[in-house]
Amino acid sequence: MLSANKIIICGGTHGNELTGVYLAKKHGWFLANPAAAEKCRRYIDCDLNRCFAMSNLNSKTEGLENIRAKVINAMLGQKGTEDAPDFILDLHNTTANMGITLILSHMDSDILNICTHIAKEFTDVHIYLQEEERTESPYIGTVAKTDVCIEAGPQAHGTLDAELFFKVERVAFRFLELIEAWKNGSLPKTSGKIETFSEIRNVDYPRDSGGNIAAMVHPALQGKDFCELSAGMPVFLGFDGKEILWEGETCYPTFINEAAYYEKKIAMSLAKRDYLTV
Amino acid sequence: MLSANKIIICGGTHGNELTGVYLAKKHGWFLANPAAAEKCRRYIDCDLNRCFAMSNLNSKTEGLENIRAKVINAMLGQKGTEDAPDFILDLHNTTANMGITLILSHMDSDILNICTHIAKEFTDVHIYLQEEERTESPYIGTVAKTDVCIEAGPQAHGTLDAELFFKVERVAFRFLELIEAWKNGSLPKTSGKIETFSEIRNVDYPRDSGGNIAAMVHPALQGKDFCELSAGMPVFLGFDGKEILWEGETCYPTFINEAAYYEKKIAMSLAKRDYLTV
Repeated sequence: MLSANKIIICGGTHGNELTGVYLAKKHGWFLANPAAAEKCRRYIDCDLNRCFAMSNLNSKTEGLENIRAKVINAMLGQKGTEDAPDFILDLHNTTANMGITLILSHMDSDILNICTHIAKEFTDVHIYLQEEERTESPYIGTVAKTDVCIEAGPQAHGTLDAELFFKVERVAFRFLELIEAWKNGSLPKTSGKIETFSEIRNVDYPRDSGGNIAAMVHPALQGKDFCELSAGMPVFLGFDGKEILWEGETCYPTFINEAAYYEKKIAMSLAKRDYLTV
Repeated sequence: MLSANKIIICGGTHGNELTGVYLAKKHGWFLANPAAAEKCRRYIDCDLNRCFAMSNLNSKTEGLENIRAKVINAMLGQKGTEDAPDFILDLHNTTANMGITLILSHMDSDILNICTHIAKEFTDVHIYLQEEERTESPYIGTVAKTDVCIEAGPQAHGTLDAELFFKVERVAFRFLELIEAWKNGSLPKTSGKIETFSEIRNVDYPRDSGGNIAAMVHPALQGKDFCELSAGMPVFLGFDGKEILWEGETCYPTFINEAAYYEKKIAMSLAKRDYLTV
């Protein structure tokens, strides 16, 4: 159950995802990685949004982001304790065509209810379940008792898309209103079926014997996040021009051709689609 | 007059512009900044494509790219000497919607003729004149006696768009064929009027009293590279939601919302359009 007295909206967890960086500057929200934002880079030494596992917070680790994670954890009130924030809304961008994707790191019926309101009120919103063992989850949102991560795209890292900026701003403020309404007991319950996507696994790029990328996302799949992918559909196009067809299960790809995931060996994530009855 | 015996195609002058990086790897073309390509960053210490002014090449300067520029200059045959390459084709990407833009750093009738063939044979090609005093021009292409820089977009830095990859590949090979045809005297002259764009100046983002960006490219201008901009049309949208209308001369903006130019204080470049009779 959500108990929302301490709410943090943060941007710039990745310093080149400018919607959150500039929204944080505009509204005095929490700027998670000012050093990376200053250089307009995702990170300086390592990905800050992979530093918040409890074991990492409690161990001696080096590099700017590992140190910053400990500072953030102390500032916000310590992950896993009563003083931790009630709710973190963490603002991200993606180069993938994911519209406004609301990522829930655990299933919380209040948060799901609030996200359902958002999905009904705004266009191109997706509810995405990426359930995590919270203590060892590395994401900044897991410092709080509950959280939502917003992925907004497509937007090239290091740029600002004005329409996306104002849309994410409206969504963030609507979150605050809906949380307030929930606290006051005035949040209407939604009814009917909610479309949700649940992450299954990641898919790497095809690689040559030297481990180098050997193919690109196929033009027919580019931009088709949250669309059905089934066996026989084109998924990659080799540098040699050869098409690679999908041989796996029917699924819904996300994070297709995300710039930051090349280094993580992720060409896309796969999700299944469900309709939850509320 | 073009004397084309020593021709260099290079990619990865900026390490996160992946079309050129992966075309160079595929074809064994010249990979200009392997250290930056390895990290998928534009550069390590400074912009390599601003290091090739003769005064810079001849002075003691520090940082990976300044050293790399001297190495490249020696490898390729020394800018300003007989041993310099006859022609460099330098492959870049931009987040701006510039299609295939062929940038000429000086007016050479043979090169212009070849570019005109390219513009007639491919869709969405623009010929862009950015005339430079060659000796002090900082661009890698100016190491050669003549050069063309290709800007291909829109593509988010750090990603590969498969369609753009194969289009740039076809254009690069067509350059080689047309140069060969020119050497053999078999290149047909083009006739009629050629549309060209000539760079006038750059425009910065509106800024607040602290020097920080205060507005974004207006949604109505986003993606409208090479389209006419005239007084009264919206050009920026403030973080406060206020529209900023264009008050300058009628012109054709380019490099609109290019990620790498935020740090250079360039929101867009302005060009004038001409029709050259050949």
